[in-house]
Amino acid sequence: MLRKILITGAGKSTSYLLDYFLEKAIDEQLHVVIADLNPETIPAKFKNHSNFAVIKLDIFNTEKRQKAVQEVDIVVSMLPAHMHINIAKDCILFSKHLVTASYVSDEIKTLDKEAKEKGLVFMNEIGLDPGIDHMSAMQIIDGIKKKGGKMILFESFTGGLVAPESDNNLWNYKFTWNPRNVVVAGQGGTAQFIQEGTYKYIPYHKLFRRTEFVDIKGYGKFEVYANRDSLKYREAYGLNDILTLYRGTMRRVGFSKAWNMFVQLGLTDDSYTIENSEGMAYREFVNLFLPYSPTDSVELKLRYYLKIDQDDIMWEKLLELDLFSADKKIALKNATPAQILQNILEDSWTLADEDKDMIVMYHKFGYELNGVKKQIDANMVVIGENRSHTAMAKTVGLPVAIATLLILNKKITRAGIQIPLQEEVYTPILKELEAYGIIFNEEEVPYLGYNPNTVAS
Amino acid sequence: MLRKILITGAGKSTSYLLDYFLEKAIDEQLHVVIADLNPETIPAKFKNHSNFAVIKLDIFNTEKRQKAVQEVDIVVSMLPAHMHINIAKDCILFSKHLVTASYVSDEIKTLDKEAKEKGLVFMNEIGLDPGIDHMSAMQIIDGIKKKGGKMILFESFTGGLVAPESDNNLWNYKFTWNPRNVVVAGQGGTAQFIQEGTYKYIPYHKLFRRTEFVDIKGYGKFEVYANRDSLKYREAYGLNDILTLYRGTMRRVGFSKAWNMFVQLGLTDDSYTIENSEGMAYREFVNLFLPYSPTDSVELKLRYYLKIDQDDIMWEKLLELDLFSADKKIALKNATPAQILQNILEDSWTLADEDKDMIVMYHKFGYELNGVKKQIDANMVVIGENRSHTAMAKTVGLPVAIATLLILNKKITRAGIQIPLQEEVYTPILKELEAYGIIFNEEEVPYLGYNPNTVAS
Repeated sequence: MLRKILITGAGKSTSYLLDYFLEKAIDEQLHVVIADLNPETIPAKFKNHSNFAVIKLDIFNTEKRQKAVQEVDIVVSMLPAHMHINIAKDCILFSKHLVTASYVSDEIKTLDKEAKEKGLVFMNEIGLDPGIDHMSAMQIIDGIKKKGGKMILFESFTGGLVAPESDNNLWNYKFTWNPRNVVVAGQGGTAQFIQEGTYKYIPYHKLFRRTEFVDIKGYGKFEVYANRDSLKYREAYGLNDILTLYRGTMRRVGFSKAWNMFVQLGLTDDSYTIENSEGMAYREFVNLFLPYSPTDSVELKLRYYLKIDQDDIMWEKLLELDLFSADKKIALKNATPAQILQNILEDSWTLADEDKDMIVMYHKFGYELNGVKKQIDANMVVIGENRSHTAMAKTVGLPVAIATLLILNKKITRAGIQIPLQEEVYTPILKELEAYGIIFNEEEVPYLGYNPNTVAS
Repeated sequence: MLRKILITGAGKSTSYLLDYFLEKAIDEQLHVVIADLNPETIPAKFKNHSNFAVIKLDIFNTEKRQKAVQEVDIVVSMLPAHMHINIAKDCILFSKHLVTASYVSDEIKTLDKEAKEKGLVFMNEIGLDPGIDHMSAMQIIDGIKKKGGKMILFESFTGGLVAPESDNNLWNYKFTWNPRNVVVAGQGGTAQFIQEGTYKYIPYHKLFRRTEFVDIKGYGKFEVYANRDSLKYREAYGLNDILTLYRGTMRRVGFSKAWNMFVQLGLTDDSYTIENSEGMAYREFVNLFLPYSPTDSVELKLRYYLKIDQDDIMWEKLLELDLFSADKKIALKNATPAQILQNILEDSWTLADEDKDMIVMYHKFGYELNGVKKQIDANMVVIGENRSHTAMAKTVGLPVAIATLLILNKKITRAGIQIPLQEEVYTPILKELEAYGIIFNEEEVPYLGYNPNTVAS
């Protein structure tokens, strides 16, 4: 008998997810219903396949949504995170499993008891970050603990970047996922983490000036800025007594220093709208954030305000974006500074059809075993194929797809609201991901930690 | 027949307010009920006066509060702003007038219709700032309009400072009002204003680096940082088409640059608490905001992070506060950085018994009359007597007291939620304030505006 899967929200980011089910459909006896508000964009190979059905679905149409959920065995929601809740409630109502790549929201959490009572697996955070980061970290942490080691340090960094062969702008960056998340990254609270037992706090306006560097063999040097939520998984990972816990976002070196110009100016602010934004020249927009002085140019005012030398590469980065153009106009009405900045950046940072993106993940594990401090470094690099088959879509979509099949095949059975921290989850998924080129390089290195033996003089 | 006044919340800041009623009690036939949670601190001269009664009142005790309101003709609430609403509702219920020095809250606004229907005057924002600023500005603006002038520029700055004779620290600052308001000043939104027809936006982390200078004859140079709400009174003041509208807070020159160190570090953040704050040394507290590096001192890390030279006066300002003390401990549990910073600053910035404070207010009015651009500058300086009779208490308390009597005497009669923008309000109050030494110096000066005739070269 066919096992039925409903996939809601089949945007570009689901290319690998859908291909995985296409590959497995016959052997695994799958019937996959792809539901989207705009089903026209779904490739013909699915529409013409007898194991697939493509339907138009407005997720806010309760009747249609419930009908779709009722007819399958498991639901995969690739919709934006805030749209999951109704589907999740339907899954409770009709006793269906659920898989998403999104963070567990407080709303979703409230369904834990009912999901457990009905024996339903609600697997979340099973994309890239969150997702592969959880699984790859837990595999190594559990391994260290099994050997009798005690974790003393865990650092974890991820970046969605542009591949070296497509890296042709001064920022060494292009948008490979939701641009909005990039523009408002770091906002909404002070970054908090622990280093060698000391809490550390970085306010937003200093976040991009407190970077650390990381080298990845074959790929060169990267920088990392702190995530807001380094301490979020301390308990879930079983790291309550750890001395250093730090999570961050990776960029090519120099990005953060340049991005900080936007932060300092106030261009990333998403908390108020600019009334007369439509039709405003980029140049006028920038001038809103500079002191009034009609006898000085916008350029000189900005350089003086941010203390940028005229031969600084930071300056070239701004010019590359055409930020001072008097001709280019903002097309958004009553937009926030962040929305306008996103618009300006999309002019320059959108992937071309043949551009390749790159996912980089880096973990550092410090531990003590038999009185000796040791360290394991692990990293993963995935290069995309082109704009529609990105490394981002691959690393988000494949773990979701693999987990879905494992749940259908009763290999993952723990009921309730889950994130992929258990061996029964990460072992088969990480193993299968390797076959798709999503591979971690792991090596023992001398323990460095944060206390090198240099002496203050 | 005696006219009865209820005063709720008689803290230190009400010294001049109470003295005013004491002075007028016999002639004006007043009976004043002073209600406070801690009535012990009310001076004997009131307790022993037959026209005064001192009662203990918990403002959240509805029965007692309503009884007190019921027995009088008018209520003066000097409680913190968020505590006014119950009293205001009682005033509606029992048809009593109300006077406060606080900003009109959205809650209070909802009572406008009922107050009007019952012919009740609810006068708010009638202290210093808001209060004297409204009245003194509207008097000059109305005067300009009466002459046929058209307003093109309005700037208004107020500062609560320490008087020159008591100014003995490197910050040229002491707390003269609620210290918390000083620590979190500028937070909660981007500062917005207009200069020569151009909107300007300053994010919090740049606020204290975008100061302007102001000279006041006999008192020297001050600096101004922008208030968040420069545009708030545009309509109420009748300045809809004005080209420049800018409100700000005055400090002695150099304060803001030094304060910016706290902002940059994150010490003014009030959005999260530090778990283990109690018993932490000042030095440890500062270190929470600096990069981890056990081989470097907290001092050097901070100097490097904020790029402060070792011979910079900014550095001396930090030392003066004992910010790097390993002995001084924080006495607050689970406190926010802002609460802890306030605690540290109170060590150094509390007025001594004989210290005098100083209120400075400065308005600049630009206008066009018969095709000629003109300018009026007006300023007010008030020096306090000592720690209990501050210029702040005087400039907040006297307008409240005078307005109360004017309402009782039916000189102010406009019903509903009011702020003091009308001639019937500002003329008698400003005139009477002069007798108490609260005097504006007004002079016509050449129009400068923001477009001096310098040519870009």
